[in-house]
Parts: sequence; structure tokens; C-alpha cells
Amino acid sequence: VLGEHEVEVELVDERPWEWRPAFLAINPAGELPVLELDGFASLCGAYACSEFLCERPVVPQPEPRRHLQLLGGGREERAEVRRLVDWFLHKMDREVTAELVALKVEPIYTGRPAPDAQADAMRAARYNLRYHLSYISFLADQRRWLAGDELSLADLAAAAGISILDYLDEVGWEDFPAAKAWYQRYKSRRAMRLLLTDRIPGLPPPLAYTDLDF
Amino acid sequence: VLGEHEVEVELVDERPWEWRPAFLAINPAGELPVLELDGFASLCGAYACSEFLCERPVVPQPEPRRHLQLLGGGREERAEVRRLVDWFLHKMDREVTAELVALKVEPIYTGRPAPDAQADAMRAARYNLRYHLSYISFLADQRRWLAGDELSLADLAAAAGISILDYLDEVGWEDFPAAKAWYQRYKSRRAMRLLLTDRIPGLPPPLAYTDLDF
Repeated sequence: VLGEHEVEVELVDERPWEWRPAFLAINPAGELPVLELDGFASLCGAYACSEFLCERPVVPQPEPRRHLQLLGGGREERAEVRRLVDWFLHKMDREVTAELVALKVEPIYTGRPAPDAQADAMRAARYNLRYHLSYISFLADQRRWLAGDELSLADLAAAAGISILDYLDEVGWEDFPAAKAWYQRYKSRRAMRLLLTDRIPGLPPPLAYTDLDF
Repeated sequence: VLGEHEVEVELVDERPWEWRPAFLAINPAGELPVLELDGFASLCGAYACSEFLCERPVVPQPEPRRHLQLLGGGREERAEVRRLVDWFLHKMDREVTAELVALKVEPIYTGRPAPDAQADAMRAARYNLRYHLSYISFLADQRRWLAGDELSLADLAAAAGISILDYLDEVGWEDFPAAKAWYQRYKSRRAMRLLLTDRIPGLPPPLAYTDLDF
């Protein structure tokens, strides 16, 4: 959201599983994201952060620049955006992304191998991912962006999850051409290109990860 | 939220685990709540429903009636309300409520016994519940309502989870007097009293469940 609004931020590494007291003092939930803006109390969680940023831009927008309404312009459009944000930040995360991150990424940081049920959990998450890619394809086939004609928080939420899964080389794009076309279009935006430069130490992404012609 | 806004609704039973095609056609996520209002597309999920209802009351409010601002009056107040809604609808749900419902309620409906890991999962959820009750006590000790001076969605989200856990006789109130005083105050509101008449067939709540002097 900050990137789409062209707000510069300093990113700070935080490993929430370390339960650092100074971090818990900022967000007692011990979760990310947390956003610290000059002159405001800390904002905790994607829900509070994104709604706050969408209510009014944090820095004045350059004019004449087309006004971005990431939450949608009307009341029913906002409900559709929020339905899909919930879908990608919670349903897809629970059924796919969080599982695969726990299995493939967390062991790199913690040094603890993934738990025993690994093979079953991996299979289930991969099976679920195909269902979510089908749903993205279904939406992308009917609409220009996932929630309607305009880019919205729904696209950002979906791309946040999908880019993690793509980093982990888990996305079988060839079976989901409409989802692929949507993600190609989103990847070419400046805000997303910046995110794609982020790396997990010790776990390089596949070559096509940053490629716009993947 | 509808109750607090004094909007009458007809409640319809839905068993989301049955994946009823007619229900999936309304909400492809297959989850509750879903809200159908005359003249609007269906609203899916607590996030879309509650934000929609808080943006503008669905029916005109009787005057002179104090205007309820369940999302908070200012931008930072709204961020605090949303932080806590996230906490109770997602963090507490994942760590406590959904676990205990899966173990104690779902077997009644599905006829399938809870899975093997039952004792461990039950112990973990009960342990986590004490942490969430401590946090409610901490908030209730410092503020009139959980997110500040005014009743907000944060109280509704917390009470939604806590009332389920209280129905299941899982809340050791005696160790959390500030949380208890908050819940007593919330229980006495008309909107909550109506919710407390709801019953799970075959699983009666403890006697104190509807009692204001529990």
C-alpha cells in the first residue's frame, strides 16, 4: 500500500518468533506487519495499517496524479474488496501460504527441522493452492483486476501471498493462464518490482521470480 | 453489529462444513457470517459485513438516540479498534476458540469423534485462553471499554469469542476479575442478551451462561 501511494519507508527486519520484548511492547500480538509513522501511534496488523492508509494518503499525492482508491469507490465495491482481502490474507494464508512457509522457510531461520507430519501437510497445502489459483483465474477471467475494474487492496493481498509461493517455486503457472496474466500485469507495477528485490538469506528464489516474462 | 444498531434480522441456520452448493454460490469461501440485505449484493465475512454496517446504518436510527460509532470516532481510534478486532477474530480464534469448537462442538454435528491429538490440543487451547483473558483484563483495567472510552467493534469481537468459550464452560472467571466486570457490563446490553438465547442442540450451556451475576 505504501509503495502504491509512493511513500518511502525504511524496512526493519523483525523475527516475530523470537518474541523480542521491545517488539512486543510495540505490538503485544507479536505479529507483523507493524507500521510506525511520524506523529502517530504504531499501527499493528494488515487490517489496521491498510485501512488507515486508505482513509487518507499519509503524504500528499503529487498532482495531477490519478487518485488511487485501493478500497474501491463505492460502498458495495468496498465490501467486495474486503471480502477478497479476507480471502487472501486469511483463507489462502491458513490453507496454503502459512503452511508452506512453516515447512520451507521457518527451518532456515530457527535451525529446527519441520515437524513430522511434513509430507502430508505439504501435499495438502499444494492441493489447496491449486484451488486458490483456480479462484484467482476465475476472478481474473471476468474482471480487469480481482475485485473489479480498478486495482484494489484485493490485488495487493493476493499478490502478497502469491509472490511468497512463487518465491518458493510452488506455483504451477502453466495450468492457470488467467491467473498468470493477472500476476504478470501486477508484477510490472513499480511498487511490486521493489518488493521482488527482497530476499530470504540462504534461500534464493527461482530465476523466473523477478522475471516479467515468466 | 445489527443488534447494536437495532436492525431486525432473520437468522438462518447454515452448516458450512456441508458445502451446500446453494450456499457456496452466495459465498464461495464457504464461511460464515453472510449477510443478505434488501437491495444489496450479499456481504461475505465479518470484515466486509462489519465495515459495511459501520459506514452508515442500514436503517435510519431513531432520534434522539446517541450515535453509536462502533469503529471509533477518529483515525487513530479506528486503528486501535481494528487492531483489536483482528486480535479477537483471528489470533484468539486460531489459538483458542476454533480449537475448542472443533474439539467440543463439531463432533456433535458431524457424528465424527474429534481427532486423536485431542488431549494435547485441548490443553494447549486452555493454556492460551488464560493468556487472552489476561489481555482482556489488562485492557479492561485501563479503559472503560476494550479499545477506549466508547463501546466499539473490539468489544463485540471479543464478546463473540468469549461467549462461545463461556457457553462451553471454559472460562475461569475467578482469576480475571477485570475481564469479568467487562463481560458482565457487555452481557447486560440488549443486543448481547438476544444472542445469549441461541442454543446448540444437544449441548446446553452452563447455568451461569445467561446470568448477569455469574
